[in-house]
Amino acid sequence: MDNRPVGVFDSGLGGLTAVREIMNILPSENVIYFGDTGRVPYGGRSRETIIKYARQDVQFLQSFDLKAIVIACGTVSTTAMDVITREYTLPIFGVVDPTARRAAGATRNGKIALIGTQATVRSGAYERLIQKWNPEAEVRAYPCPLFVPLVENGRFRRGDIVIETVASEYLKPIRDWGADTLVLGCTHYPLLMDVIGEYLGGGVVLVNSGVEVAADLKRQLRIRDLTADPGQSGDCCYYVSDSVEGFSQLASVFLNRDLSDSVEKVDIEKY
Amino acid sequence: MDNRPVGVFDSGLGGLTAVREIMNILPSENVIYFGDTGRVPYGGRSRETIIKYARQDVQFLQSFDLKAIVIACGTVSTTAMDVITREYTLPIFGVVDPTARRAAGATRNGKIALIGTQATVRSGAYERLIQKWNPEAEVRAYPCPLFVPLVENGRFRRGDIVIETVASEYLKPIRDWGADTLVLGCTHYPLLMDVIGEYLGGGVVLVNSGVEVAADLKRQLRIRDLTADPGQSGDCCYYVSDSVEGFSQLASVFLNRDLSDSVEKVDIEKY
Repeated sequence: MDNRPVGVFDSGLGGLTAVREIMNILPSENVIYFGDTGRVPYGGRSRETIIKYARQDVQFLQSFDLKAIVIACGTVSTTAMDVITREYTLPIFGVVDPTARRAAGATRNGKIALIGTQATVRSGAYERLIQKWNPEAEVRAYPCPLFVPLVENGRFRRGDIVIETVASEYLKPIRDWGADTLVLGCTHYPLLMDVIGEYLGGGVVLVNSGVEVAADLKRQLRIRDLTADPGQSGDCCYYVSDSVEGFSQLASVFLNRDLSDSVEKVDIEKY
Repeated sequence: MDNRPVGVFDSGLGGLTAVREIMNILPSENVIYFGDTGRVPYGGRSRETIIKYARQDVQFLQSFDLKAIVIACGTVSTTAMDVITREYTLPIFGVVDPTARRAAGATRNGKIALIGTQATVRSGAYERLIQKWNPEAEVRAYPCPLFVPLVENGRFRRGDIVIETVASEYLKPIRDWGADTLVLGCTHYPLLMDVIGEYLGGGVVLVNSGVEVAADLKRQLRIRDLTADPGQSGDCCYYVSDSVEGFSQLASVFLNRDLSDSVEKVDIEKY
């Protein structure tokens, strides 16, 4: 048993969809969340800049006595995971491994599409891992750079012509190709499940990286004998690199509940 | 006569619309441009973070022997200008003063609308300055948070249902109110002039902050006897805080010409 908290970070708010899943299936775990809201979004930046920011995010989380870190950011998991895991001894889990494994097993026709930020698509990480688990599968990746700003501006509901137009442009080649499995390769995208599901139809399996990374964390903590005392009720503390007010407003949308817990500001450039 | 360069900075690419105007009307001036592409956009961030970033941007430009600095960013000009000008002895010009003066003089019915980022609207800077020049005028400000990401994703052309829908939502209250003057309070917005002009109709004067700050710079350099040798042909050097490749692609859209000049990367967090 180990009651030390799990650190979770993302470029901004998206990672909260993973926190929501962690709280659902691991209610005894304490979580320390860092959202780099002062430098969000990461998805359009270069690999070099993403690695630099990810290092600072991990360094900040390392200032707590943690038992593990979850990279709840599709962009960092695909672009900087190899560098980051080499540099630290703490167990670090990203979204790509479990999500790729789920997608590899879910496809029936062997056509798996991936949507993500420009950096995630550029990395090729999902293609490599999915093909490790399912060498027969064909993977095609599509960047969706406007999804993050649209979601962060509250435009993720069915019936909104702006998100529906952008979604249909991004998803048309996926529907035309006939993929039966779609990886939501960015932790912002679960908020778009209704819009995406409606456009692609019920025959396409949507793989949610927040759900997969939470399930993987549960498995990994059990294997390493790191689970918290099941009798305790876990807490979550939030840290951000821009103002606390701006964060709290939107966070409740991602968490799907009121953010009553504590939020503090951090000078991330010092790490 | 003074051949030292003028420093120009913005959160990212938007300020290039001001550089374009400076090159047009001051072809002998050397310009050093800094775009903080590693931390763009600024417009949704807190005042505290914007001031911190603006200080680093000025510190970096100060590493050159400059004769003046132009803040070609609506968000920094409205939010951090007072703090920044107090801290440095170099002449520093922002977009707000000349743009507010132009708008104050252009209105005939006294109804002036302002569009800008969330930070620009929150600052109230345009309202204060316009009313200094025209105490009769009424000013109403409207935040347009999606305009910057849409422009940066190339969605600024007439006939694009996404930008036209977003623009009509943002601009409808302005048209309903009957403003005859609209301040484009962000240096990204000149790329939207066609879309905005079509929606509002020809009776509304669109005040372009890039044009106004360039005209102001010309006036100020003349007053202070700082203009460059008119026989020389000015150069522009570009510095960015993220990758050079990503910048060069989009920059030509903002400059309306090929970016053949040099671009270098800077570690802005060191300043």
